[in-house]
Amino acid sequence: MKSEFELIKLLRKKIPRKMQGKLGIGDDAAVLPGPGAERLLFTTDILVEGVDFIRRKTPAAHVGAVPAGYPAVRRMVPPRPELVGRKAVAVNLSDIAAMGGTPYAFVVSLGIPRNMNQKWILKFYDGVIALARQFGVLCVGGDISRAREFFVSIAMIGRARPQEIVTRRGARAGDWIAVTGKLGGSIFERHLTFEPRVKEARFLARRFHPTSMIDLSDGLVQDLGHILQESSAGAKLNLNKIPVSRDALKLAHGNSEAALRHALTDGEDFELLFTISGAKKKSLDRAWKRQFPRLKLSWVGKIAAAKQSSQTAVADDRILWTRDGKPAAAPRLAKKGFSHF
Amino acid sequence: MKSEFELIKLLRKKIPRKMQGKLGIGDDAAVLPGPGAERLLFTTDILVEGVDFIRRKTPAAHVGAVPAGYPAVRRMVPPRPELVGRKAVAVNLSDIAAMGGTPYAFVVSLGIPRNMNQKWILKFYDGVIALARQFGVLCVGGDISRAREFFVSIAMIGRARPQEIVTRRGARAGDWIAVTGKLGGSIFERHLTFEPRVKEARFLARRFHPTSMIDLSDGLVQDLGHILQESSAGAKLNLNKIPVSRDALKLAHGNSEAALRHALTDGEDFELLFTISGAKKKSLDRAWKRQFPRLKLSWVGKIAAAKQSSQTAVADDRILWTRDGKPAAAPRLAKKGFSHF
Repeated sequence: MKSEFELIKLLRKKIPRKMQGKLGIGDDAAVLPGPGAERLLFTTDILVEGVDFIRRKTPAAHVGAVPAGYPAVRRMVPPRPELVGRKAVAVNLSDIAAMGGTPYAFVVSLGIPRNMNQKWILKFYDGVIALARQFGVLCVGGDISRAREFFVSIAMIGRARPQEIVTRRGARAGDWIAVTGKLGGSIFERHLTFEPRVKEARFLARRFHPTSMIDLSDGLVQDLGHILQESSAGAKLNLNKIPVSRDALKLAHGNSEAALRHALTDGEDFELLFTISGAKKKSLDRAWKRQFPRLKLSWVGKIAAAKQSSQTAVADDRILWTRDGKPAAAPRLAKKGFSHF
Repeated sequence: MKSEFELIKLLRKKIPRKMQGKLGIGDDAAVLPGPGAERLLFTTDILVEGVDFIRRKTPAAHVGAVPAGYPAVRRMVPPRPELVGRKAVAVNLSDIAAMGGTPYAFVVSLGIPRNMNQKWILKFYDGVIALARQFGVLCVGGDISRAREFFVSIAMIGRARPQEIVTRRGARAGDWIAVTGKLGGSIFERHLTFEPRVKEARFLARRFHPTSMIDLSDGLVQDLGHILQESSAGAKLNLNKIPVSRDALKLAHGNSEAALRHALTDGEDFELLFTISGAKKKSLDRAWKRQFPRLKLSWVGKIAAAKQSSQTAVADDRILWTRDGKPAAAPRLAKKGFSHF
């Protein structure tokens, strides 16, 4: 079996380009005409028991379903069902946000095992509804089916003005690269409790129109790689500016270089990574501190021309590493990033 | 664990009414404003291995996942993967059609077991794309995840002019009840190969505006029950007019009364059941024969005032049975209809 990205590529190739909508498949959400002068955004995400969360303490049967290299801590502690429901909505909100859109409505499909505790499902649903209500998004339908493991698939639509939509493909040499929040170690809890950056992304899209944007689900290096590939660009990253979270440091047992590697490659931070014209850096910096005084904004590098050699999706090939302007050795990353597959 | 309908009811109760969109949850698709002067329709359906289809010949492990009473024939023969992919799209097309809408775009989420044959997935996808292309509907994105069993969840949006939308709640005493095609025994193959009634439903919505409409997924008695409940109405059904399929007769080993019961309660016919003002019956009948000469249209009964006593969802309580106008004994239905849960 191929990797997640290889399989997605194979499947995508089967779909005629004109059947893929305006942008073509491969951004955080699809872009379609309407309503009115607006555009419609459309996205979907699945969470599966035994892969994205567990319900009980590590029954042996589940371990087989967990990908190799999957952090052990995540499969040891069953999260509260409300948090699983919350996350199912949050990851979709994050996708709509990353396009510069306003989340609007969603449908929920559930796979439910025969012997399943009904209280768990109802609490799960409480988490779904609570976050939907917080973000003013409609829950308009769904489907349920028997299944051998619990899973949830949410599909969400959003709205955006055409001129405010931000894709992965507009980064230009000279743009600054910025990231919100602090990275790495989301596995401890943040991958469940993270705040989808909807208002932050709307603020950016409306007032500063980033040239590209993505939400960090696969890890900084890998997600920056998606932007670089779609924009046919390279990047210089300043290792001294990567915002390392306390959780990353904790996961690295206090080793700061190891913590930095976590910040670069751990998945599911769900922060915003975006690029913006150099001319806007100063005014955004000022406006950001007024608007979001409690959320760090880090300028982690700049977009560069693509290296001739790097036609591949491997982000590393496209990235030059620096420490405050001086070339630095590439960090030894054991993995490129997080795989959900 | 509660039944499918009871659980859906419990979950639905958790969602504040104003979070449920224009119609409230409970029709074939949700109705939302836009694009432009149009309305947006939004629906989702799941298919799960071991419940809706099998991939291999009945491994013992699967049998446990199959609901009691599930027709044995369905779990004995693994369908071609293209047909499973086809069905995943077709059931969503059928939902949009039943609202009087035009299918527009969908997203596909797949749960994929670790050891899965990749060819199976690619052929499955061929089936998805082929039907999407046939109906001119866009495939704009998706998600994949590891899972212990294969599942597919498709969410589809459609468009409709407000005045052409047909819900489940407009049936009035005196309306005629009509059904397309022939019913029962879809288990042999038709549940996989059925033609979604998109152009037929569009024709009805545009030219004859039915007072209510639903696609038959749970069986005639149960799905008529949904209309009667949502419309607060009762019905007289003419047992001599129920269109019984050859497959139903085959399933009943030639016993015509048993075949009739199959036509009344078997699931997944995916034909249209609708009600229409008596004044339009004659002209629709004529126009239908010109437009769809090869698809039978049967006038199976009439809407009546609700019986005082029947406040429940049980369709039987709301239905008076006749044979060409004369009261008839209610058929002895072992089950009310098909459950996907």
